[in-house]
Amino acid sequence: MIKAEGPATLGRDRPALNRRMLERNTMSALIAGVMGPGKTATEEEVRSAYELGKRIAQLGWILLTGGRKYGVMDAAGRGAKASGGTVVGILPGADTREMSDSVDIPIATGMLDARNSINVLSSRILFFIGMNPGTASELALALKYGRPAILISQKEDIIRAFQSMSPKKIEIAADVSSSIEIARRIAGSLDSGSNR
Amino acid sequence: MIKAEGPATLGRDRPALNRRMLERNTMSALIAGVMGPGKTATEEEVRSAYELGKRIAQLGWILLTGGRKYGVMDAAGRGAKASGGTVVGILPGADTREMSDSVDIPIATGMLDARNSINVLSSRILFFIGMNPGTASELALALKYGRPAILISQKEDIIRAFQSMSPKKIEIAADVSSSIEIARRIAGSLDSGSNR
Amino acid sequence: MIKAEGPATLGRDRPALNRRMLERNTMSALIAGVMGPGKTATEEEVRSAYELGKRIAQLGWILLTGGRKYGVMDAAGRGAKASGGTVVGILPGADTREMSDSVDIPIATGMLDARNSINVLSSRILFFIGMNPGTASELALALKYGRPAILISQKEDIIRAFQSMSPKKIEIAADVSSSIEIARRIAGSLDSGSNR
Amino acid sequence: MIKAEGPATLGRDRPALNRRMLERNTMSALIAGVMGPGKTATEEEVRSAYELGKRIAQLGWILLTGGRKYGVMDAAGRGAKASGGTVVGILPGADTREMSDSVDIPIATGMLDARNSINVLSSRILFFIGMNPGTASELALALKYGRPAILISQKEDIIRAFQSMSPKKIEIAADVSSSIEIARRIAGSLDSGSNR
Repeated sequence: MIKAEGPATLGRDRPALNRRMLERNTMSALIAGVMGPGKTATEEEVRSAYELGKRIAQLGWILLTGGRKYGVMDAAGRGAKASGGTVVGILPGADTREMSDSVDIPIATGMLDARNSINVLSSRILFFIGMNPGTASELALALKYGRPAILISQKEDIIRAFQSMSPKKIEIAADVSSSIEIARRIAGSLDSGSNR
Repeated sequence: MIKAEGPATLGRDRPALNRRMLERNTMSALIAGVMGPGKTATEEEVRSAYELGKRIAQLGWILLTGGRKYGVMDAAGRGAKASGGTVVGILPGADTREMSDSVDIPIATGMLDARNSINVLSSRILFFIGMNPGTASELALALKYGRPAILISQKEDIIRAFQSMSPKKIEIAADVSSSIEIARRIAGSLDSGSNR
Repeated sequence: MIKAEGPATLGRDRPALNRRMLERNTMSALIAGVMGPGKTATEEEVRSAYELGKRIAQLGWILLTGGRKYGVMDAAGRGAKASGGTVVGILPGADTREMSDSVDIPIATGMLDARNSINVLSSRILFFIGMNPGTASELALALKYGRPAILISQKEDIIRAFQSMSPKKIEIAADVSSSIEIARRIAGSLDSGSNR
Repeated sequence: MIKAEGPATLGRDRPALNRRMLERNTMSALIAGVMGPGKTATEEEVRSAYELGKRIAQLGWILLTGGRKYGVMDAAGRGAKASGGTVVGILPGADTREMSDSVDIPIATGMLDARNSINVLSSRILFFIGMNPGTASELALALKYGRPAILISQKEDIIRAFQSMSPKKIEIAADVSSSIEIARRIAGSLDSGSNR
């Protein structure tokens, strides 16, 4: 099963949403996507991604990333594993070369960055740490598809540009902790079907 | 983490492959795909799929299906859950409508049957129960991509047709039990990196 | 516009469908897909594909193939060009390496055989010459999506297998000429919107 | 063949690239993508797109758009048709509902905005008029894949945001005429294989 149901995960960090799911005896946990640069990620972005991965796992959520062994994807995955979480990696390639060791469930798409659309559609909430063209395509698709998007420590230029396209749908967080608060609030308002 | 490491899953049903993975302290378990008809599946196919899902979960493998709440996909998922397994559903739609309740990890592709290519690329071993056009496209892609394909209780016409295209790559099993024996042998010969 | 409107293309080989399109002053011509093996195609399959490409172009139809420079795809494209036709190539790669010289309009998908779904969805009528796993996946998807599929000179095993999945939807032709007769009849029954 | 070879298209607007192609007796013309908002396009964006479509057709280039009957896509297509050009529409749906009448060659992908990746990979040069999330995803992918991207009359916020991700790869044009000058210069530096 995906989640141990021990005391640790039933503690105060576990939102009402997941409690409802346990009551319904379903294993389906909310999938949260973390998107950000790979090889070009800064040290600070890597640190934030690791912390974010940990926090996502502590909430009992499943982490979804682009699955590669670089930068934000890799660090978020390692953080999630350090807290006993589950990591889904949606890979651009047809196999698992260059996959992060943190990935439990590799999905090999073989469709390059067309897979970014799957990253977004499969995540109930998306976090964005750092920015590069691949990440920007995922943020744009989150806005297009109406998926909640939380920007963490992004530059003013980026925020202004994307807000000018889609003013209501973007959440701005100054750090990982406040991004998690925002995400928990959003999760509480999602339909009880979790990923459904 | 994906798999409880209790005695049950470390027993004799657990192949050498997974033992190696535990030694390496990685959580990545082999992903096995089960493909077959949805609404048009026969009762016998549904029974076989349920049994197959159970056996896959007992081996400590992750089950991957097309994720819909019908026929072989649904039954294999329910079987896997009954044995404490994990179920990945690669959905054709952009959301989780018509998803099987058994799915732990829904991947919403939004790309109709182009997602069949992902089903095949993401599975290390594929089982085929029953046959219809969607299933045939997945069998054909398994042969195209060189993924091990195990046909269970298939009709002579189907076997002959696909063997004429790709004689060496198809395994024929008379029932679920022998398909599992074949799959364990194949898993033993896969590289130790599991899904990598 | 796509097609010169010279006497040759307005002659008796031009079906009622296209005449209606000219009257409506629309340029959109029917897209016909030709699917078949690449490097493993037999000489006879290559000859048939070339002839079929010619006949498709003479009807004023646009030819769609998988776009590679091998076997049936390449030969159909060369035949179409020899009769002044237009060739669309839906490529598996992200660029035009290994593209057939016959392709006028290369569509680079970068998604391997997930592009087979696009081949089928974008063709109003599909012809199948020769058979291998890639071709079989396209035939299966044609049946799945309900696109008219015409098998040319296929082996009994193949015909029986696919007919057992989808009895009504497959047309059987002994040679290129009869496949064209079947296609013209089907085209006449398609809605007047051509590719719409 | 795709393009009539009359005097109009052999005139001074035809770049050296296409002349070389004619000498080589190949029909493959450069594919230029025009991306921009659909229903939310402004009147000015629609006017610019129409003019741009005309200019692209006059150069003997093939126009590629997202194929829908709204806004920039539709206007660029109508402009291209008014100058005798050819229009390829890469549609998000599985059929041609809501397709622009201007489309000669509809490619039905059935994969929602995952098709944006195909738009970019299949275009040798991309123009961007107006901006919304879908368009932004295409601009981001153009930068990711290294395809030349020309922004026409874009707001400062947008320019700054994307330049901060990929400083060298973005061309800025104040109007359609200067975007065409930039595109001709880029086309001259592309390899002679056109779309290859």
